[in-house]
Amino acid sequence: MSVLECAILNVRPGQESAFETAMRTARPLIAATPGFDGIELRRCLEVPSRYLLHVRWRALKDHTIGFRQSERYERWRALLHHFYDPFPVVEHYSAPVTIL
Amino acid sequence: MSVLECAILNVRPGQESAFETAMRTARPLIAATPGFDGIELRRCLEVPSRYLLHVRWRALKDHTIGFRQSERYERWRALLHHFYDPFPVVEHYSAPVTIL
Repeated sequence: MSVLECAILNVRPGQESAFETAMRTARPLIAATPGFDGIELRRCLEVPSRYLLHVRWRALKDHTIGFRQSERYERWRALLHHFYDPFPVVEHYSAPVTIL
Repeated sequence: MSVLECAILNVRPGQESAFETAMRTARPLIAATPGFDGIELRRCLEVPSRYLLHVRWRALKDHTIGFRQSERYERWRALLHHFYDPFPVVEHYSAPVTIL
Protein backbone atom coordinates (compact mmCIF):
# COMPACT_ATOMS: atom_id res chain seq x y z
CA MET A 1 0.00 0.00 0.00
CA SER A 2 1.43 3.37 -0.97
CA VAL A 3 0.14 6.91 -0.66
CA LEU A 4 0.71 9.87 -2.93
CA GLU A 5 0.88 13.29 -1.30
CA CYS A 6 -0.21 15.92 -3.79
CA ALA A 7 -0.09 19.70 -3.53
CA ILE A 8 -0.41 22.50 -6.05
CA LEU A 9 2.10 25.15 -5.04
CA ASN A 10 1.51 28.73 -6.14
CA VAL A 11 4.87 30.44 -5.79
CA ARG A 12 5.12 34.23 -5.63
CA PRO A 13 5.86 35.30 -9.23
CA GLY A 14 9.54 36.11 -9.76
CA GLN A 15 10.66 33.75 -6.99
CA GLU A 16 10.54 30.54 -9.02
CA SER A 17 14.29 30.10 -9.28
CA ALA A 18 14.85 30.77 -5.57
CA PHE A 19 12.03 28.35 -4.76
CA GLU A 20 13.58 25.56 -6.84
CA THR A 21 16.93 26.14 -5.13
CA ALA A 22 15.26 26.05 -1.70
CA MET A 23 13.46 22.84 -2.60
CA ARG A 24 16.78 21.21 -3.48
CA THR A 25 18.17 22.34 -0.13
CA ALA A 26 15.08 21.05 1.69
CA ARG A 27 14.86 17.69 -0.06
CA PRO A 28 17.13 15.77 2.37
CA LEU A 29 14.90 16.89 5.26
CA ILE A 30 11.89 15.06 3.87
CA ALA A 31 13.88 12.22 2.30
CA ALA A 32 15.29 11.25 5.70
CA THR A 33 11.79 10.30 6.91
CA PRO A 34 11.10 6.56 7.28
CA GLY A 35 8.49 5.59 4.67
CA PHE A 36 9.56 8.32 2.21
CA ASP A 37 9.58 6.85 -1.29
CA GLY A 38 10.33 9.72 -3.65
CA ILE A 39 9.58 13.34 -4.51
CA GLU A 40 8.79 15.06 -7.79
CA LEU A 41 8.32 18.71 -8.56
CA ARG A 42 6.81 19.74 -11.89
CA ARG A 43 6.18 23.18 -13.31
CA CYS A 44 2.81 24.15 -14.73
CA LEU A 45 2.65 24.93 -18.44
CA GLU A 46 -0.36 27.26 -18.12
CA VAL A 47 0.80 29.19 -15.02
CA PRO A 48 4.60 29.26 -14.79
CA SER A 49 4.66 30.24 -11.11
CA ARG A 50 2.63 27.15 -10.25
CA TYR A 51 4.18 23.78 -9.37
CA LEU A 52 2.85 20.31 -8.72
CA LEU A 53 4.48 18.54 -5.78
CA HIS A 54 4.21 14.79 -5.47
CA VAL A 55 5.66 12.87 -2.57
CA ARG A 56 5.29 9.12 -2.33
CA TRP A 57 4.91 7.59 1.12
CA ARG A 58 4.61 4.03 2.34
CA ALA A 59 1.70 5.05 4.57
CA LEU A 60 -0.23 8.22 5.42
CA LYS A 61 1.20 8.45 8.93
CA ASP A 62 4.75 8.49 7.56
CA HIS A 63 3.89 11.97 6.31
CA THR A 64 1.39 13.28 8.84
CA ILE A 65 3.22 12.03 11.92
CA GLY A 66 6.68 10.87 10.87
CA PHE A 67 7.57 14.01 8.95
CA ARG A 68 5.22 16.74 10.12
CA GLN A 69 5.89 16.10 13.79
CA SER A 70 9.65 15.97 13.31
CA GLU A 71 12.15 18.76 13.89
CA ARG A 72 13.09 18.42 10.23
CA TYR A 73 9.64 19.73 9.31
CA GLU A 74 10.34 22.97 11.15
CA ARG A 75 13.36 23.52 8.94
CA TRP A 76 11.39 22.49 5.81
CA ARG A 77 8.75 25.04 6.70
CA ALA A 78 11.30 27.79 7.30
CA LEU A 79 12.95 27.10 3.94
CA LEU A 80 9.80 26.83 1.83
CA HIS A 81 6.57 28.16 3.23
CA HIS A 82 7.29 31.85 2.61
CA PHE A 83 7.28 31.19 -1.15
CA TYR A 84 3.61 30.17 -1.26
CA ASP A 85 0.68 32.48 -1.89
CA PRO A 86 -1.89 31.28 -1.07
CA PHE A 87 -0.77 28.56 1.29
CA PRO A 88 -1.35 25.22 -0.45
CA VAL A 89 -3.92 22.55 0.30
CA VAL A 90 -2.16 19.22 0.71
CA GLU A 91 -4.08 16.03 -0.01
CA HIS A 92 -3.29 12.34 -0.06
CA TYR A 93 -4.35 9.82 -2.65
CA SER A 94 -4.45 6.05 -2.60
CA ALA A 95 -2.64 3.70 -4.94
CA PRO A 96 -4.07 3.84 -8.48
CA VAL A 97 -7.50 2.33 -9.06
CA THR A 98 -6.88 -1.10 -10.52
CA ILE A 99 -7.90 -2.47 -13.92
CA LEU A 100 -7.64 1.07 -15.26
CA MET B 1 9.90 15.74 -23.35
CA SER B 2 6.76 14.52 -21.65
CA VAL B 3 3.76 16.29 -20.20
CA LEU B 4 1.59 15.32 -17.26
CA GLU B 5 -2.09 16.24 -17.47
CA CYS B 6 -3.46 16.65 -13.96
CA ALA B 7 -7.04 17.15 -12.81
CA ILE B 8 -8.76 16.87 -9.45
CA LEU B 9 -12.15 15.32 -10.11
CA ASN B 10 -14.94 15.94 -7.63
CA VAL B 11 -17.49 13.20 -8.31
CA ARG B 12 -21.08 13.54 -7.11
CA PRO B 13 -21.16 11.67 -3.79
CA GLY B 14 -22.68 8.21 -4.11
CA GLN B 15 -21.65 7.89 -7.77
CA GLU B 16 -18.05 6.81 -7.16
CA SER B 17 -18.54 3.20 -8.25
CA ALA B 18 -20.43 4.18 -11.42
CA PHE B 19 -17.72 6.74 -12.17
CA GLU B 20 -14.94 4.17 -11.86
CA THR B 21 -16.85 1.82 -14.17
CA ALA B 22 -17.38 4.61 -16.69
CA MET B 23 -13.68 5.49 -16.55
CA ARG B 24 -12.79 1.90 -17.40
CA THR B 25 -15.20 2.04 -20.34
CA ALA B 26 -13.77 5.38 -21.48
CA ARG B 27 -10.11 4.47 -21.13
CA PRO B 28 -9.67 3.05 -24.68
CA LEU B 29 -10.99 6.32 -26.12
CA ILE B 30 -8.12 8.32 -24.69
CA ALA B 31 -5.56 5.52 -24.98
CA ALA B 32 -6.06 5.37 -28.74
CA THR B 33 -4.65 8.90 -29.10
CA PRO B 34 -1.16 9.17 -30.61
CA GLY B 35 1.20 10.45 -27.90
CA PHE B 36 -0.82 8.92 -25.04
CA ASP B 37 1.58 7.39 -22.54
CA GLY B 38 -0.54 6.20 -19.61
CA ILE B 39 -3.41 7.06 -17.29
CA GLU B 40 -3.78 6.79 -13.53
CA LEU B 41 -6.80 7.42 -11.33
CA ARG B 42 -6.32 7.70 -7.55
CA ARG B 43 -8.89 8.21 -4.83
CA CYS B 44 -8.47 10.91 -2.20
CA LEU B 45 -8.03 9.76 1.39
CA GLU B 46 -9.47 12.95 2.90
CA VAL B 47 -12.49 13.32 0.55
CA PRO B 48 -13.60 9.91 -0.79
CA SER B 49 -15.63 11.37 -3.67
CA ARG B 50 -12.53 13.16 -4.96
CA TYR B 51 -10.11 11.60 -7.46
CA LEU B 52 -6.78 12.59 -8.93
CA LEU B 53 -6.46 11.98 -12.66
CA HIS B 54 -3.05 11.83 -14.26
CA VAL B 55 -2.55 11.33 -17.97
CA ARG B 56 0.91 11.25 -19.47
CA TRP B 57 1.37 12.68 -22.96
CA ARG B 58 4.34 12.94 -25.28
CA ALA B 59 3.48 16.59 -25.94
CA LEU B 60 0.80 19.10 -24.93
CA LYS B 61 -0.83 19.12 -28.35
CA ASP B 62 -1.36 15.37 -28.21
CA HIS B 63 -3.96 16.14 -25.54
CA THR B 64 -5.28 19.56 -26.51
CA ILE B 65 -5.54 18.88 -30.23
CA GLY B 66 -5.05 15.14 -30.79
CA PHE B 67 -7.58 14.02 -28.20
CA ARG B 68 -9.83 16.99 -27.50
CA GLN B 69 -10.52 17.68 -31.15
CA SER B 70 -11.24 14.04 -31.93
CA GLU B 71 -14.62 12.33 -32.14
CA ARG B 72 -13.46 10.05 -29.33
CA TYR B 73 -13.46 13.05 -27.00
CA GLU B 74 -17.18 13.54 -27.62
CA ARG B 75 -17.79 10.00 -26.36
CA TRP B 76 -15.39 10.49 -23.42
CA ARG B 77 -17.30 13.61 -22.45
CA ALA B 78 -20.68 11.87 -22.71
CA LEU B 79 -19.46 9.00 -20.52
CA LEU B 80 -17.76 11.05 -17.82
CA HIS B 81 -18.57 14.74 -17.58
CA HIS B 82 -21.95 14.33 -15.86
CA PHE B 83 -20.20 12.82 -12.82
CA TYR B 84 -18.28 16.02 -12.01
CA ASP B 85 -19.45 18.78 -9.69
CA PRO B 86 -17.92 21.28 -10.07
CA PHE B 87 -16.44 20.78 -13.50
CA PRO B 88 -12.69 20.23 -13.06
CA VAL B 89 -9.82 22.49 -13.94
CA VAL B 90 -7.35 20.58 -16.09
CA GLU B 91 -3.71 21.64 -16.06
CA HIS B 92 -0.51 20.41 -17.65
CA TYR B 93 2.87 20.06 -16.00
CA SER B 94 6.33 19.67 -17.43
CA ALA B 95 8.72 16.81 -16.82
CA PRO B 96 10.04 16.81 -13.23
CA VAL B 97 12.48 19.54 -12.25
CA THR B 98 15.92 17.98 -12.49
CA ILE B 99 18.46 17.44 -9.69
CA LEU B 100 15.54 17.15 -7.27
